[in-house]
Amino acid sequence: MQPTAAIIIIGDEILSGRTADKNINWLASVLYERGIRLTEARVIGDNEKRIIETVQTLSSANDMVFTSGGIGPTHDDITTSCIARAFGVNVIRHPEADQRLIDHYAGTGLEYNKARQKMADIPEGAELIDNPVSAAPGFILKNVYVLPGVPSILQAMVENMGDRLPGGTKAHRLTVQTDIGEGSLAEGLARVEAEFKGVSVGSYPWFKPGTYGTALVVTGLEKNLVESAAMALVALVESFGGKGFIDEKVIGGNTP
Amino acid sequence: MQPTAAIIIIGDEILSGRTADKNINWLASVLYERGIRLTEARVIGDNEKRIIETVQTLSSANDMVFTSGGIGPTHDDITTSCIARAFGVNVIRHPEADQRLIDHYAGTGLEYNKARQKMADIPEGAELIDNPVSAAPGFILKNVYVLPGVPSILQAMVENMGDRLPGGTKAHRLTVQTDIGEGSLAEGLARVEAEFKGVSVGSYPWFKPGTYGTALVVTGLEKNLVESAAMALVALVESFGGKGFIDEKVIGGNTP
Repeated sequence: MQPTAAIIIIGDEILSGRTADKNINWLASVLYERGIRLTEARVIGDNEKRIIETVQTLSSANDMVFTSGGIGPTHDDITTSCIARAFGVNVIRHPEADQRLIDHYAGTGLEYNKARQKMADIPEGAELIDNPVSAAPGFILKNVYVLPGVPSILQAMVENMGDRLPGGTKAHRLTVQTDIGEGSLAEGLARVEAEFKGVSVGSYPWFKPGTYGTALVVTGLEKNLVESAAMALVALVESFGGKGFIDEKVIGGNTP
Repeated sequence: MQPTAAIIIIGDEILSGRTADKNINWLASVLYERGIRLTEARVIGDNEKRIIETVQTLSSANDMVFTSGGIGPTHDDITTSCIARAFGVNVIRHPEADQRLIDHYAGTGLEYNKARQKMADIPEGAELIDNPVSAAPGFILKNVYVLPGVPSILQAMVENMGDRLPGGTKAHRLTVQTDIGEGSLAEGLARVEAEFKGVSVGSYPWFKPGTYGTALVVTGLEKNLVESAAMALVALVESFGGKGFIDEKVIGGNTP
């Protein structure tokens, strides 16, 4: 069994192209490793109506949702109030979050002012997610995990959660690297996928100056089926006079 | 006036974390430069129902939609048929696309087989988007621009489109770099945004070993308002004893 998840990246700076998102790929890899199936990721702006609707839609459709961005001290940080409104609960000054921030700022010479106090405002009934870097916590409300946008802090917080993050059956994945173009292999790929039920075969062409090839990615929940399908793909590649080898590391793919 | 756009990234390999998407940020920057407002980006899997629904939803809600991925020769390339179904039209073997692929493969020693011929199948009524790299075209159907997933090919195709890509009023953007934490500036930022109507102020904290600061990003359609707001932000930073300077290049931000 694999629980499902969705990711919501919140921030105008991603939509304007100013900042390249790094959190989708990092979270996607973590979820994959934990046996959670990511069904969708959305990037949306700092817009109240859009955040509320997106949280409601994806929270109903998935076992869990991860949001990133918009929980800082400034006027454009509106994620916390939107999540509360999405579930019809109030935002309260959370005593534990408040104390952590008081302690954090005590040592810095920075004032724990009204704006920074906003980071201690948490929807009623939410559980805190610890922030080992900069104290301001994230939180879990219903099935929504609310995280910051800065990648280094998001990563520290998720890694720090350990087994509070649920898991499922980990998928097995093998990559068959080949020097044959995917157009030559296409019919055979469909045949292999049809033969090994429950296994999916992805085909990712790559191009480098003077050379090209295809990374064939076999994924499934049953290890022996994934291995057999990968061996069938190597045989397919060889039937076209090419070289194919099974590589557990990720190389090639859409990243020339 | 700024027309609106949405991006749909199609591919299981992005959701599993195997491949990091590069197309959202590249397309977002191109759209920003052309004065098109990106309202949303979604990453979805190679799933027929999900692709059709997402295309229909985002095509109704935006002036244009860009899709990336799923137009190659293999069994997991289902974008073309899904786009056709989303708009209730048939897929036909496009004579011009067919001829381009025949010419392209003539020089390669590769067979123009049934799988590769699939890349000449285009929804009825669509216009081709030229592919200066590997011949297989994209297409425009209604307000949907259908592009490949491989970043280098997508980029060549979009750049090659030139003014076939519509445009709008280009936004102005200035970044004020400062060594003051955003929590200190927060109240003032909200005040500046309220004072300069039509200007938005984004606040992006950054952290590096031993130092930190905030990039304040001012965006708006009127150049002089954006400049005045940026100067007000510099004054705000100086009122806290910090250094602030206007920087048109993108530095700092969420990318420590």
